[in-house]
Amino acid sequence: MAKIGFIKLGNLGMSQVIDLVQDEIAAREGISVRVFGTGPKMGKDEAAATAELKAWGADFYVMISPNASAPGPTAAREIYKDVPCIVISDGPTKKEDRAALEEAGFGYIIMTVDPLIGAKTEFLDPVEMASFNSDAMKVLSTCGVVRLIQEELDKVAAMADEGKELELPHIVAKPEKCIERAGFSNPYAKAKGLAALHMADMVAKINFPACFMMKEIEQVTLTAAAGHEMMRAAAQLAIEAREIEKANDSVFRQPHSKKGYLMTKTSLYEKPKQ
Amino acid sequence: MAKIGFIKLGNLGMSQVIDLVQDEIAAREGISVRVFGTGPKMGKDEAAATAELKAWGADFYVMISPNASAPGPTAAREIYKDVPCIVISDGPTKKEDRAALEEAGFGYIIMTVDPLIGAKTEFLDPVEMASFNSDAMKVLSTCGVVRLIQEELDKVAAMADEGKELELPHIVAKPEKCIERAGFSNPYAKAKGLAALHMADMVAKINFPACFMMKEIEQVTLTAAAGHEMMRAAAQLAIEAREIEKANDSVFRQPHSKKGYLMTKTSLYEKPKQ
Amino acid sequence: MAKIGFIKLGNLGMSQVIDLVQDEIAAREGISVRVFGTGPKMGKDEAAATAELKAWGADFYVMISPNASAPGPTAAREIYKDVPCIVISDGPTKKEDRAALEEAGFGYIIMTVDPLIGAKTEFLDPVEMASFNSDAMKVLSTCGVVRLIQEELDKVAAMADEGKELELPHIVAKPEKCIERAGFSNPYAKAKGLAALHMADMVAKINFPACFMMKEIEQVTLTAAAGHEMMRAAAQLAIEAREIEKANDSVFRQPHSKKGYLMTKTSLYEKPKQ
Amino acid sequence: MAKIGFIKLGNLGMSQVIDLVQDEIAAREGISVRVFGTGPKMGKDEAAATAELKAWGADFYVMISPNASAPGPTAAREIYKDVPCIVISDGPTKKEDRAALEEAGFGYIIMTVDPLIGAKTEFLDPVEMASFNSDAMKVLSTCGVVRLIQEELDKVAAMADEGKELELPHIVAKPEKCIERAGFSNPYAKAKGLAALHMADMVAKINFPACFMMKEIEQVTLTAAAGHEMMRAAAQLAIEAREIEKANDSVFRQPHSKKGYLMTKTSLYEKPKQ
Amino acid sequence: MAKIGFIKLGNLGMSQVIDLVQDEIAAREGISVRVFGTGPKMGKDEAAATAELKAWGADFYVMISPNASAPGPTAAREIYKDVPCIVISDGPTKKEDRAALEEAGFGYIIMTVDPLIGAKTEFLDPVEMASFNSDAMKVLSTCGVVRLIQEELDKVAAMADEGKELELPHIVAKPEKCIERAGFSNPYAKAKGLAALHMADMVAKINFPACFMMKEIEQVTLTAAAGHEMMRAAAQLAIEAREIEKANDSVFRQPHSKKGYLMTKTSLYEKPKQ
Amino acid sequence: MAKIGFIKLGNLGMSQVIDLVQDEIAAREGISVRVFGTGPKMGKDEAAATAELKAWGADFYVMISPNASAPGPTAAREIYKDVPCIVISDGPTKKEDRAALEEAGFGYIIMTVDPLIGAKTEFLDPVEMASFNSDAMKVLSTCGVVRLIQEELDKVAAMADEGKELELPHIVAKPEKCIERAGFSNPYAKAKGLAALHMADMVAKINFPACFMMKEIEQVTLTAAAGHEMMRAAAQLAIEAREIEKANDSVFRQPHSKKGYLMTKTSLYEKPKQ
Repeated sequence: MAKIGFIKLGNLGMSQVIDLVQDEIAAREGISVRVFGTGPKMGKDEAAATAELKAWGADFYVMISPNASAPGPTAAREIYKDVPCIVISDGPTKKEDRAALEEAGFGYIIMTVDPLIGAKTEFLDPVEMASFNSDAMKVLSTCGVVRLIQEELDKVAAMADEGKELELPHIVAKPEKCIERAGFSNPYAKAKGLAALHMADMVAKINFPACFMMKEIEQVTLTAAAGHEMMRAAAQLAIEAREIEKANDSVFRQPHSKKGYLMTKTSLYEKPKQ
Repeated sequence: MAKIGFIKLGNLGMSQVIDLVQDEIAAREGISVRVFGTGPKMGKDEAAATAELKAWGADFYVMISPNASAPGPTAAREIYKDVPCIVISDGPTKKEDRAALEEAGFGYIIMTVDPLIGAKTEFLDPVEMASFNSDAMKVLSTCGVVRLIQEELDKVAAMADEGKELELPHIVAKPEKCIERAGFSNPYAKAKGLAALHMADMVAKINFPACFMMKEIEQVTLTAAAGHEMMRAAAQLAIEAREIEKANDSVFRQPHSKKGYLMTKTSLYEKPKQ
Repeated sequence: MAKIGFIKLGNLGMSQVIDLVQDEIAAREGISVRVFGTGPKMGKDEAAATAELKAWGADFYVMISPNASAPGPTAAREIYKDVPCIVISDGPTKKEDRAALEEAGFGYIIMTVDPLIGAKTEFLDPVEMASFNSDAMKVLSTCGVVRLIQEELDKVAAMADEGKELELPHIVAKPEKCIERAGFSNPYAKAKGLAALHMADMVAKINFPACFMMKEIEQVTLTAAAGHEMMRAAAQLAIEAREIEKANDSVFRQPHSKKGYLMTKTSLYEKPKQ
Repeated sequence: MAKIGFIKLGNLGMSQVIDLVQDEIAAREGISVRVFGTGPKMGKDEAAATAELKAWGADFYVMISPNASAPGPTAAREIYKDVPCIVISDGPTKKEDRAALEEAGFGYIIMTVDPLIGAKTEFLDPVEMASFNSDAMKVLSTCGVVRLIQEELDKVAAMADEGKELELPHIVAKPEKCIERAGFSNPYAKAKGLAALHMADMVAKINFPACFMMKEIEQVTLTAAAGHEMMRAAAQLAIEAREIEKANDSVFRQPHSKKGYLMTKTSLYEKPKQ
Repeated sequence: MAKIGFIKLGNLGMSQVIDLVQDEIAAREGISVRVFGTGPKMGKDEAAATAELKAWGADFYVMISPNASAPGPTAAREIYKDVPCIVISDGPTKKEDRAALEEAGFGYIIMTVDPLIGAKTEFLDPVEMASFNSDAMKVLSTCGVVRLIQEELDKVAAMADEGKELELPHIVAKPEKCIERAGFSNPYAKAKGLAALHMADMVAKINFPACFMMKEIEQVTLTAAAGHEMMRAAAQLAIEAREIEKANDSVFRQPHSKKGYLMTKTSLYEKPKQ
Repeated sequence: MAKIGFIKLGNLGMSQVIDLVQDEIAAREGISVRVFGTGPKMGKDEAAATAELKAWGADFYVMISPNASAPGPTAAREIYKDVPCIVISDGPTKKEDRAALEEAGFGYIIMTVDPLIGAKTEFLDPVEMASFNSDAMKVLSTCGVVRLIQEELDKVAAMADEGKELELPHIVAKPEKCIERAGFSNPYAKAKGLAALHMADMVAKINFPACFMMKEIEQVTLTAAAGHEMMRAAAQLAIEAREIEKANDSVFRQPHSKKGYLMTKTSLYEKPKQ
């Protein structure tokens, strides 16, 4: 049995499904999941509130938030520093900051490919926000990021289940690393997926000035819109990549058995095998 | 000030963003959000665990899960029956069951358009699950469902903020109702959006037998794959619809101001106005 | 030699090609076809007029019309009840009505997948009508319905040719049945085709209220437009499905030889074989 | 009242809907339609059989077939030379042949844009035939050809209804002429439609050698497949053209009133006006 | 060592890359290239100016221009008639004119598939011109024309390198000839490519009257726009064709080795082999 | 009268059309163009050879090559340092290097958006090279880069024509600068164009390691393929952007009059005006 606690501060693309990826049909035995989230905000108050889930006594925690170096996530880590906890975020991107995380005992998966949204009142409303998250999830799911997260969390859960000491992951999930997990069999599908990841990665470089530096309405909205168009184009490439695999009946699938081990299958009509 | 507690049992498409839609850029004052979730499962144990968030004393709760008539959600409602609570689900679809919910004091928004996933080990793995959720979110976001949820929750939050007695919504979110919230200005874009919602609605009719009645591997996987292809096609129609509005520079946007009221804008370069 | 008489009352998608599917290059010996049609109308006068073709003395007749239970088709069947006649229509969908047809000696193929057009003056003009029929034909042709009709008529023609007693077909052509005739070799192409058929099937559910219940101009036109958008999306899925087979050089073809037997081929450069 | 008889020898793209275009919702008063067809074949036997419809005594006849100069259609015209009859075909393309038709008292509409199918056993089966007809109909419907036919037939029907002497049309329906009837308001949509018509026109130049001159299997199938790909691309351009008009809510529609006069509308929510 | 001189008078689609195709990564030994061009114009002055490159003493010259029968190119040939020179153009299309070229000692490759641009001030500006050239290059590159040019020039360069007498090519590059050089392995991809070439070929038939015969602004711009839309559609077909080959990992590649011989590879991860 | 000499060393995307953009229909008076190129190579020998065009005595020269800091271009500049010469390249990207260029008297336009090709024998062959250039040109043409070059060269040509002292441009053509020249009227089209430029810009970051750092065949080909897929996606975005402007009949055009001044037009049927 593994008890896994998810703490969600603010929102990343991956936040949408991270608590679901280990039990996609809700039939897996030997795993128990609890989620505590603070909605869109990730300030100090929210950080303090996360203490609540600690009482549950999970085997390990997964703390997901944008920018793990921000004050809120930093404060939240203070609370969880004495229990096994994996930080999942789009930063810190600096090596030394990640080393500090590791020294403090945290595992981490830093996904530079989880794209920064164009978070300006002049552009973003709830519909645009949700629509952007849909595009982000299309890339994250089909280009290897979801599988990377799932495999790494499964590894730790297996250790917990077996009563072993937990070895937490320390991974920088750059495009080149993610794409290897995607399981593409056609090399051009893989190349499209890799390009999509690079584009998701690059969205932050466009949206960052829109979010934090620009003031003038035309510049802000044009730039954020360009960021979202790039994300849309990335999603489209990811779709194309998967369509190629479908056309070859070579979609790699890795469902969980009821007992929790991973099975694999490739041809659609094939039974999953351990 | 409004305190809103979200309880997530299992997963619907809308679960991915429901706690974010009232504060899309995480800058709204006077609103506080907490989320308690149980991951993919929604059995009796999970239902019992939801009691934890009640202690927070939210002004109102939002309980989202598939099939609100299932034992887990039913048990969870027992816990929250004496506080203001809005049930958000894809069922019950029968009138009398919804009447019973209302009599028991619950608000509800029943989204028949939140599509049933093809949840069979033979077909679904974490990647396919996340990819399907991306398609679902594309339709939910751009075809009015996200806005319907946001507007209804905002109304109740405003009542809480103003210290009024809370009037909870009782809405069956069928395609025809949702599309009116989408704010399309071009009638063909609206028609595409409406068709996409009907298709999302119909996915359940295809996936239900795949999930619960079929046994044979070819039949199960072909049928679930057809359900997911229909969802993919629905997402594509939703994308087309929004592209038309973009081409006309008539995307209706409704961002929240810092103070929490809704602003609107249509032309991209226009400033949002109250 | 087989003499086949086609009676067309009103118009279905399939009406466009039904008299052509047994002799696609107009070179088949031993088959003779005559068609009598009444244009768009299918009232009692038109029904009476169909008597004309009876004099020709076909080996069997094929009577195609929308809604076989309507007064016109019913009256026309009175005329043909004493000769071998196969009813092809989009209804009756009720089992007992079909049983009655069979008891009365008629064969039938009820294609629930032949979509109901949005037949309202406020929306439909000759161009929209023809364009919708194009979309319908794309699904009917590539997703198995044309082949089902062709194979069934060929069987009866063969019996006539051989002087056997005619065994007429009794088939409800639902999506699941049709798709098996399409000959897809790639399972995702097949799933796309199946989804397209389900969508074609669903168009009636959208267009029916537009045609017969709604009055208000915006509601009528929006709804019918949504029905036609769904048909357009279905056609697009059907196109995608065939493109996959083309990309795999696995398009299954079944041309008629000059002598009338079916040949088959799959690779484009392959010669058709008996 | 106008009685219109349609004689169909063999099949053109336009044959699929020609008897429907004057009464698209089957509700027009004062018009009566009968169709006599001979299926795919158009030889001398079929020509002789068309005599049957003459007895009906239509106000005028419309005889549609491929290549009006072929022996079958020529023989059929002998039968109808003493009654008002409009020949609709993809040829003769030579001026003097058309002059001869006119001198013989026939009206004609020669549609060079109705594409020649790749009618070789090695390539064409019933499914490919029907699918090609779908593509042809997409261009014919949205690029002005259907409307040209409808308007011209309506004019003659109006003369018949008013008891005037019938003036039959003499039209060569080349791309430039057809596109003017399509009612596009956006000039690029019109240009796309015009390009689609030119491509449909050109299909014959590709398929003709495949049908009548080539022998070798690879050459035949590659060439016919290229012809069908060009038709597919033309259909896609036609779809794009109409999507532009939809995006501008400027689709020109011209439905028939119950009384038979033409109404027009442009905006989707607008009521048709006389 | 081979010295190759390129003379560019005016512009064809192929002019953009013709001096690059023998040395795509700029690493080939034993080849030396010089280009002399006259920009858009190709009159007598420009023709005279081309004499400059003759002094270089190339092993052979390649003279590329639209319409090789025009006065400018004709005058330029006078200068180069006593050295080995290959004329590359979209005409002359008449057999006797090409025979005259050959008798005069010139090699030629007449590419009827290099499309005529819609060169009218009312339509063409630098952006439209460059965008059209992009579409032309997509067809020329992926449908065999670039490879035909490359292979033919390589052959002559090899003769020069080996000190043999030069045998110059005499080729009319029609669609059927070009497509054989494209190296498609999927027959439908090849059919799409062939259709694209036919469309490129046909563009001249549309643009010619727009360029040289029409006067009225609407007619000129509509017609030229239709020509450019057809080229756009041809490019799209060419893209589709290559995507099919990518999906099958069967893109045929023929890079030059450093030493200048051709290597080939098909699977993406495969090493090129001699 | 302005005499303009173009020196092309190696190849950039822009090299394909740079000598054409000032005289798109080859009818402009008062301008004379000569081009000297060295094909794919740009070493010291090629640099020396460029001296040839200096003798012509152009009013100004335009020297286009990849990486202006490389030895070849640097050597070529030595030759042209005493005449007016504008350097057009994708680098140097460092400010001080550009300052040095300016101090040496050169004008420059550094286009970071002209994408670096994946120039490895393992991946690039003449077809892939030309196809990539087509994608590059689609972005360069429709997203403002071609117009920027054209406008800047026109300015200098006008000075030459008027006998003024030449003021040479000093421009770093980043995405944000280029997009302002594109003349988009729809803001989402502009955002798509901007995203396409950013993607073109980013291609170098992917292809650089493939070209210069990676060794292993799978890594090299996958990475270069990803770079080319990104360029393909950028081209597609650029196409979408222009389609929006076409759908709004708002394509901004700026043709040259016969006399050489710029005219403008927007609606397709509008006459160009000065």
